Amino acid sequence: MPLTPLPSALSRRAFLTATAATTVFAVIRGAEAKPIAFAIHGGAGGISKDSTPPEREALYRAKLAAVVTAGHNVLKRGGSALDAVVTAIVMMEDSGVFNAGKGSVFTSAGTCELDASIMDGATRAAGAVAGVKRIKNPIRAARAVMERSPHVLLTGVGAETFAAEQGLTLVSPKYFGTEEGRRELERVKAEESKRPKVAQSVPAEALPRKLGTVGAVALDAQGNLAAGTSTGGMTNKRFGRVGDAPIIGAGTYADNATCAISCTGHGEYFIRSVVAHDVAALMAYKGLSLAEATQEVVLRKLVAFGGLGGLVALDRAGNIAMPFNSPGMFRAAIGADGKVFVGIYREDG
Amino acid sequence: MPLTPLPSALSRRAFLTATAATTVFAVIRGAEAKPIAFAIHGGAGGISKDSTPPEREALYRAKLAAVVTAGHNVLKRGGSALDAVVTAIVMMEDSGVFNAGKGSVFTSAGTCELDASIMDGATRAAGAVAGVKRIKNPIRAARAVMERSPHVLLTGVGAETFAAEQGLTLVSPKYFGTEEGRRELERVKAEESKRPKVAQSVPAEALPRKLGTVGAVALDAQGNLAAGTSTGGMTNKRFGRVGDAPIIGAGTYADNATCAISCTGHGEYFIRSVVAHDVAALMAYKGLSLAEATQEVVLRKLVAFGGLGGLVALDRAGNIAMPFNSPGMFRAAIGADGKVFVGIYREDG
Repeated sequence: MPLTPLPSALSRRAFLTATAATTVFAVIRGAEAKPIAFAIHGGAGGISKDSTPPEREALYRAKLAAVVTAGHNVLKRGGSALDAVVTAIVMMEDSGVFNAGKGSVFTSAGTCELDASIMDGATRAAGAVAGVKRIKNPIRAARAVMERSPHVLLTGVGAETFAAEQGLTLVSPKYFGTEEGRRELERVKAEESKRPKVAQSVPAEALPRKLGTVGAVALDAQGNLAAGTSTGGMTNKRFGRVGDAPIIGAGTYADNATCAISCTGHGEYFIRSVVAHDVAALMAYKGLSLAEATQEVVLRKLVAFGGLGGLVALDRAGNIAMPFNSPGMFRAAIGADGKVFVGIYREDG
Repeated sequence: MPLTPLPSALSRRAFLTATAATTVFAVIRGAEAKPIAFAIHGGAGGISKDSTPPEREALYRAKLAAVVTAGHNVLKRGGSALDAVVTAIVMMEDSGVFNAGKGSVFTSAGTCELDASIMDGATRAAGAVAGVKRIKNPIRAARAVMERSPHVLLTGVGAETFAAEQGLTLVSPKYFGTEEGRRELERVKAEESKRPKVAQSVPAEALPRKLGTVGAVALDAQGNLAAGTSTGGMTNKRFGRVGDAPIIGAGTYADNATCAISCTGHGEYFIRSVVAHDVAALMAYKGLSLAEATQEVVLRKLVAFGGLGGLVALDRAGNIAMPFNSPGMFRAAIGADGKVFVGIYREDG
């Protein structure tokens, strides 16, 4: 039998099955019926073309393209949705470009406190860490909590001790943070000192430019969904503050029955709106499509509530949605057609 | 005009309105159309008549009756749902009888780490603290986070520093915990050492007897809902572990549009199922009643998922639901009829 080039979505396992089957064509069609898809975000916020120098924009676009391709490659090779999510988020945590891992922004105390979570849509197993200061890759720690502890959420020193026991890399707290982040802290502090403190209502102009997190959602060739989110939090946050990123149901959610979601935005509003689970509930209980449910939550409910941000989402058919109500959202996706999409502004489509 | 005894549900404000109105009767009817209701729980778990000495049972029943009456009295005097929730939870935190505040169980490290959250159904404002070791009343700290910070969730030392700034009482970590809790830690550790560790699947016999939290839900005469939850967590939890109690959407949720919910049970399963928000979503998107939605989540979905526990819930009409799938749940309620219900076992009705 001559070897024919196989569609990229076909995993090694599917290939072996295919060559053993009587008609390769039928199995390839079967594989095509189980699409893979992958999407990431690198934070939402007051990103505008005017405030972003062209060389900076080019850097973001190149990074997003590299990360989304790396995650998608894991799926193409037949890897799991969880592996694809972790691969992509680790790259973003290590890049120093996004507000997660190395590039985390600073708390009001001038420290970096990181949060992350992950969820497996097949089993609804979940893991998260919050307020960690020494774990190089919080998304790996979240996965270790999910797979190797009876708990879902570990915080602070307890989470760091667990991560060390699991053989994950710990670093000095000085590893995290960038010069840009330091300047952003000064800017936000200066802005905040000009206005009175009002509980849970922050005017847009006082918001940090990057409401940053990073996140990824994946659909693998086995038909499983997964979602993960990682963040350095919000510039000038009170130390000890935890946003939506490590909160299952708020910043991250995955269930094969509905969708996989990773959010980015003003975390307090995302927690109070239980954003990720709300999308899943609208699909499960109201019969909305992924596109309808994500638009309802991000463009209508969150806007009415005053919650700035967006999300990336996938369903089991491989549909991708990436709505946001902020001026911009760093995002990228590769769908069933295998084409790489990268976007920052609204006009990117 | 002779002064007539007014229905207890009538607030001072309503009374003033009533005396100024042309017919007192109509306004009293108006007040009756806005019922007040209050319900609490003091934890769920492997509570059985056999394992509970009669004098212990009598103590629990008396405490539950006193707490539910105190919370309901706040509402009768025209107080807010938030005030009623905090009043009741502070009493339970101070009692030393329930797994919250003074009576908190011990972590695997022999320390006490407390979590609490509160949500206002009128505004969907929310506040929470997690992993605090020195705040006497975590529910007060959760309310302070909600009302006097721009954040929703503060953890550890950051939360304690904030609480101190807000004038809340800090205590020595030794204030928390009881002799009974110490013995329970020994028992659970011994039980656990007998079996291999398996991620997120713990056999029922190795579970702590008290899957404890305390919680309260209230409907005030203004028609507003509120919910709050407070806990010392799970006996033998890893230090740094956070359960569902401080997670908005999992352990606590309130929205005037649907319901107020406070959960108690095996927190990891409640987080992964986003239990409190799932009840609200079933009401909002599927049109289920409070009774139907709570039964669907607690008696069907959580049972299928393996999540032991229960919840107390109220809707805006004053309906009360208190389903649980564990052998027992400490619970009490006062509905529109003003009668005090107290229950521990299934047969309490």
